[in-house]
Amino acid sequence: MIVVMKLDAAEEEILAVEKRLKEAGLAGHLIRGVNRIVIGAVGDEREVIASLGLEIMPAVEKVVPIMKPFKLVSREARDEPTVVRVKEAIFGGDHLAIIAGPCAVESLEQVMKAAKYIKAAGGQVLRGGAYKPRTSPYAFQGMEEKGLEILKQAGNEYGLATVTEVIDEPSLELACDYVDMVQIGTRNMQNFRLLKAVGKVRKPVILKRGLSATIEEWLMAAEYIMSEGNDQVILCERGIRTFETYTRNTLDLSAIPVIKDLSHLPIIVDPSHATGSAKLVGSMSKGAIASGVDGLIIEVHPEPCKALCDGPQSLDPQQFTALMEELKRVANAVDRKLSNGLL
Amino acid sequence: MIVVMKLDAAEEEILAVEKRLKEAGLAGHLIRGVNRIVIGAVGDEREVIASLGLEIMPAVEKVVPIMKPFKLVSREARDEPTVVRVKEAIFGGDHLAIIAGPCAVESLEQVMKAAKYIKAAGGQVLRGGAYKPRTSPYAFQGMEEKGLEILKQAGNEYGLATVTEVIDEPSLELACDYVDMVQIGTRNMQNFRLLKAVGKVRKPVILKRGLSATIEEWLMAAEYIMSEGNDQVILCERGIRTFETYTRNTLDLSAIPVIKDLSHLPIIVDPSHATGSAKLVGSMSKGAIASGVDGLIIEVHPEPCKALCDGPQSLDPQQFTALMEELKRVANAVDRKLSNGLL
Amino acid sequence: MIVVMKLDAAEEEILAVEKRLKEAGLAGHLIRGVNRIVIGAVGDEREVIASLGLEIMPAVEKVVPIMKPFKLVSREARDEPTVVRVKEAIFGGDHLAIIAGPCAVESLEQVMKAAKYIKAAGGQVLRGGAYKPRTSPYAFQGMEEKGLEILKQAGNEYGLATVTEVIDEPSLELACDYVDMVQIGTRNMQNFRLLKAVGKVRKPVILKRGLSATIEEWLMAAEYIMSEGNDQVILCERGIRTFETYTRNTLDLSAIPVIKDLSHLPIIVDPSHATGSAKLVGSMSKGAIASGVDGLIIEVHPEPCKALCDGPQSLDPQQFTALMEELKRVANAVDRKLSNGLL
Amino acid sequence: MIVVMKLDAAEEEILAVEKRLKEAGLAGHLIRGVNRIVIGAVGDEREVIASLGLEIMPAVEKVVPIMKPFKLVSREARDEPTVVRVKEAIFGGDHLAIIAGPCAVESLEQVMKAAKYIKAAGGQVLRGGAYKPRTSPYAFQGMEEKGLEILKQAGNEYGLATVTEVIDEPSLELACDYVDMVQIGTRNMQNFRLLKAVGKVRKPVILKRGLSATIEEWLMAAEYIMSEGNDQVILCERGIRTFETYTRNTLDLSAIPVIKDLSHLPIIVDPSHATGSAKLVGSMSKGAIASGVDGLIIEVHPEPCKALCDGPQSLDPQQFTALMEELKRVANAVDRKLSNGLL
Repeated sequence: MIVVMKLDAAEEEILAVEKRLKEAGLAGHLIRGVNRIVIGAVGDEREVIASLGLEIMPAVEKVVPIMKPFKLVSREARDEPTVVRVKEAIFGGDHLAIIAGPCAVESLEQVMKAAKYIKAAGGQVLRGGAYKPRTSPYAFQGMEEKGLEILKQAGNEYGLATVTEVIDEPSLELACDYVDMVQIGTRNMQNFRLLKAVGKVRKPVILKRGLSATIEEWLMAAEYIMSEGNDQVILCERGIRTFETYTRNTLDLSAIPVIKDLSHLPIIVDPSHATGSAKLVGSMSKGAIASGVDGLIIEVHPEPCKALCDGPQSLDPQQFTALMEELKRVANAVDRKLSNGLL
Repeated sequence: MIVVMKLDAAEEEILAVEKRLKEAGLAGHLIRGVNRIVIGAVGDEREVIASLGLEIMPAVEKVVPIMKPFKLVSREARDEPTVVRVKEAIFGGDHLAIIAGPCAVESLEQVMKAAKYIKAAGGQVLRGGAYKPRTSPYAFQGMEEKGLEILKQAGNEYGLATVTEVIDEPSLELACDYVDMVQIGTRNMQNFRLLKAVGKVRKPVILKRGLSATIEEWLMAAEYIMSEGNDQVILCERGIRTFETYTRNTLDLSAIPVIKDLSHLPIIVDPSHATGSAKLVGSMSKGAIASGVDGLIIEVHPEPCKALCDGPQSLDPQQFTALMEELKRVANAVDRKLSNGLL
Repeated sequence: MIVVMKLDAAEEEILAVEKRLKEAGLAGHLIRGVNRIVIGAVGDEREVIASLGLEIMPAVEKVVPIMKPFKLVSREARDEPTVVRVKEAIFGGDHLAIIAGPCAVESLEQVMKAAKYIKAAGGQVLRGGAYKPRTSPYAFQGMEEKGLEILKQAGNEYGLATVTEVIDEPSLELACDYVDMVQIGTRNMQNFRLLKAVGKVRKPVILKRGLSATIEEWLMAAEYIMSEGNDQVILCERGIRTFETYTRNTLDLSAIPVIKDLSHLPIIVDPSHATGSAKLVGSMSKGAIASGVDGLIIEVHPEPCKALCDGPQSLDPQQFTALMEELKRVANAVDRKLSNGLL
Repeated sequence: MIVVMKLDAAEEEILAVEKRLKEAGLAGHLIRGVNRIVIGAVGDEREVIASLGLEIMPAVEKVVPIMKPFKLVSREARDEPTVVRVKEAIFGGDHLAIIAGPCAVESLEQVMKAAKYIKAAGGQVLRGGAYKPRTSPYAFQGMEEKGLEILKQAGNEYGLATVTEVIDEPSLELACDYVDMVQIGTRNMQNFRLLKAVGKVRKPVILKRGLSATIEEWLMAAEYIMSEGNDQVILCERGIRTFETYTRNTLDLSAIPVIKDLSHLPIIVDPSHATGSAKLVGSMSKGAIASGVDGLIIEVHPEPCKALCDGPQSLDPQQFTALMEELKRVANAVDRKLSNGLL
């Protein structure tokens, strides 16, 4: 860390900082400039910095941490990209995978229809929400275990891997019996109890970015999961909150190259929740692939206008099938393969 | 809701919208302007709107909801302000109450010292975190049940009510045995399972605004709690995330009059987490009181420079005592009473 | 517009609203719901709404405008996409064009070198700043007219069109003598005097989105230019301000399909200013093309590490040449042509 | 500045950084930690850092500036608070002043009426816009010179100082003939040409914060004015853009103590534009005074419901008069005087 002293810091105040650093086992290097003195100290775990209380010493102007706070998720810990495989889906490396399905599981018939089209169009993973975190207590909250059964049945029928959102430990436990991957939603990105719990299971985890989470906080949430032993973590960018109102959120595609620079974990994009509008999904899906994403999660509903949840952002099967053809061309242009090798 | 048709909507497309509204039991009123046709429909539960799928009909430009989505928390449901009383503390009406204490319970000695000064200075409620949601998995996570015991002991010793953050159902259950109020933290504002659980207990609940929650989402979270039967909800503004970096967050004091306009629930402010800096706490505390707040929650630590957590934003006992004198003058200038009547 | 009355609005208050609408020549349609009365009125110029003063009548809860405030820039005014041509560059339709060059004109040698590589790599327009709006009064403010001469000379030498930023009427007048297109920078997006002035010249104008401008405000700024008679306007997305700090700004690629939905004007992207980092430029350039952009503006400097301004975000000639090869592949995958037909 | 090297930086890459620093006349201090090497360098003008090109050397992870970029506006340049006096108004020190008046000058009668009430209620400065920067080219753009004449006449009649917004050099020149203070609006905070021009006049300048300006950028804009010789600068916080939609902007009252910590310049608050709603103005005005503000600028219109501009946020004379009584009590509670000594 770098401790910046105030212009008028007295000699004994500088000594006091050095003393405190020394007590904490850190060596302080004094840099005496024309206008200002700064003290560089080796080692700057955020926790150590916090415990030193330097920021409240009157002669200290600010303390600047230098090291990144994440470890296991960083490229410094592992330079090779992590590749996550789930049945035919491969996230990372030369491959990218397509997850698709309805926002919420509503009925067996609905999910079977969606699965059929998704498989035919070349998707590899079937999504469907059985536990829905809804803004309103009066909204449809999901079919729960019955929904998980439907998802499993449809996955088996059409040879698709399955993924669903978990919202607490009971739903996680159940989900592990039925699906191939679990997802932590936006609102739970910093539900640390839940992060630790998914860190202990042996299923791949999709970790959605919080609505206003910085990239650093998002990676720290992944660090929680990895620190419990699960290294099958896929990051999912799904739009951040800004002042713009034409889109539901603002999709931050620059997170793709930033994550690839900082971390070895794969990153996917959810263009449906990010934009909130079916007519924007195609453009953003192509943009994400050209930007280097490792997968997409797209809402597809057999009849969007009858969806119980998020109809306006769902593609219908024809739109999805047409989009998949376009995505293959873009993937090819950036030397990526849609993962089952059949495309 | 108002359905705005596209400029070039054909007559049969307009009829199709009217038909769908009718099927849902809603009467549609057609308004035919020079340039554009809009259809007004009575009743616009967000859920109903979503299920109609109007937004994906090609001739529909947009659907504008008219009614507010919250009910129990609204002033339309109850025009009188809700007053929450906890021992000597009164939040709402003519009164306002001061909650103070350390970010985290670290030791019996620390909490006893803090409690002594807080009582002497005129505070009514003692806060202290026993379960700490921390950004890093490597950071101090709280003393858990031991921390709750300490809090209770200090509260009893000094005649202060107590409040602590709960992070899941087990911690809620334990907290109810030890403290007088529970708090839902920023990161759990949309942990709906937890909201429902606190809705079932008979303790007052402080509900912090999420880091990037709109006022509407915040009120919907309170609606979750009230819909389970607990109407002792206190809203807490604690800063929202913006681009500004001199402060940890941006304290949104305009939320105070907005909440008072929309809801009957009391609102308090946390100037410590909002600003992240002890030197800004006094100014923001006075501002909040003059703006009409019903209480404050201020971090006070007997020795901020040794705090395990959030030292830079904690006041020491002398600073807190001096600030309380200033707060009394401001409260008096806006005809509010600090709640125990002794000030 | 839709006027939403308060729950407890009295009959005479409703009549008062209707009367005011009538006085303004607007017909009001009363919709009487179970819980609430709304009044729909045909015609909702923002100005008319503002002048009615409805929002401050005590019984009015809110006034919701229905029509979009922009006219000339909208697809309703012109359904065909506007295509802007400048020498070999074609922005819009099947074509997209590449603008490249240094942030600031620093010397003849620097610009000639950059131009040579840009031409060889397939770029069509040379950019270079002669008037630099800088955050600090102590920073390099541009070579002014001398810079314009250099730009013109390099453009002529290598057969490239030229573009430069103008910051006021004198710089606009000079720029028109030297360059083929002018640019309005982010900080001047709502400098309405300048917008009107560029509306009167007969050169294409690149209008950058303001740092925190909504898409609607951006289109209204374009409306200012078009309302003065210049319809050669190219919109440029260059990143909006959010809380994220790993990137300088957050590039909003979803603005591309949104603009194409709302307006006939072409849109380009500036990945260099948006990200602030050369290593992110390639990924974002490919993403923008796949998302449907009509052009890119990329910073290229013969020696980025010696740039007087924005070196860290500039590509060197080798990086730019390699990127152009990648961009051609992506453009091809989405059926777009780089505009001079030689690629 | 601090140069942080990558983990795997080679010895010759470290030497290269040291060499470049030396060439620029800066001494580099190497700090060799267990995991990482950082190089501290004395002197870190942003311009110097930019010109060094360190950030694009492959072995450099990041460059952290340490010094603040502003000088003349900082408390390090002048520790005493600057007090700005305009006729009876005193901004700063023990005093605070109230500016009030209509958003736009619409007629002599309107301004005379407003002025009469403002004077009677204890206001010291009369505001009124003669040049209105409007989002739409079709909106009322102000009465221009005729408006300035009216403002002057009303100011003379009632013994009030006057202030108006200037939008370019011609309007500045005219305004200086008619009014006592000039104002730079939000959209022109980084119109550097205009900042330099107001830096050359000898009138106090109110500098509004840009809609998404950081505090640092705002102070840099003030630095532009001061660097031209005008040190009568008053900063005005008027709300920043966030995701919240119940208020027009989010008033950042924490900017008050932050500015007082960083700068000697006085700061005022505009609660009318910040909130966009007359019913929130009182609460925010009281909050601002209790937080330590040096003045307020409040929209007052004799008949808000007939205002050509911003009626919904304007107080009527009765509301303003009542609010002034409340403001005096709050000012008194924080030991501030409304400046004409008669209150």
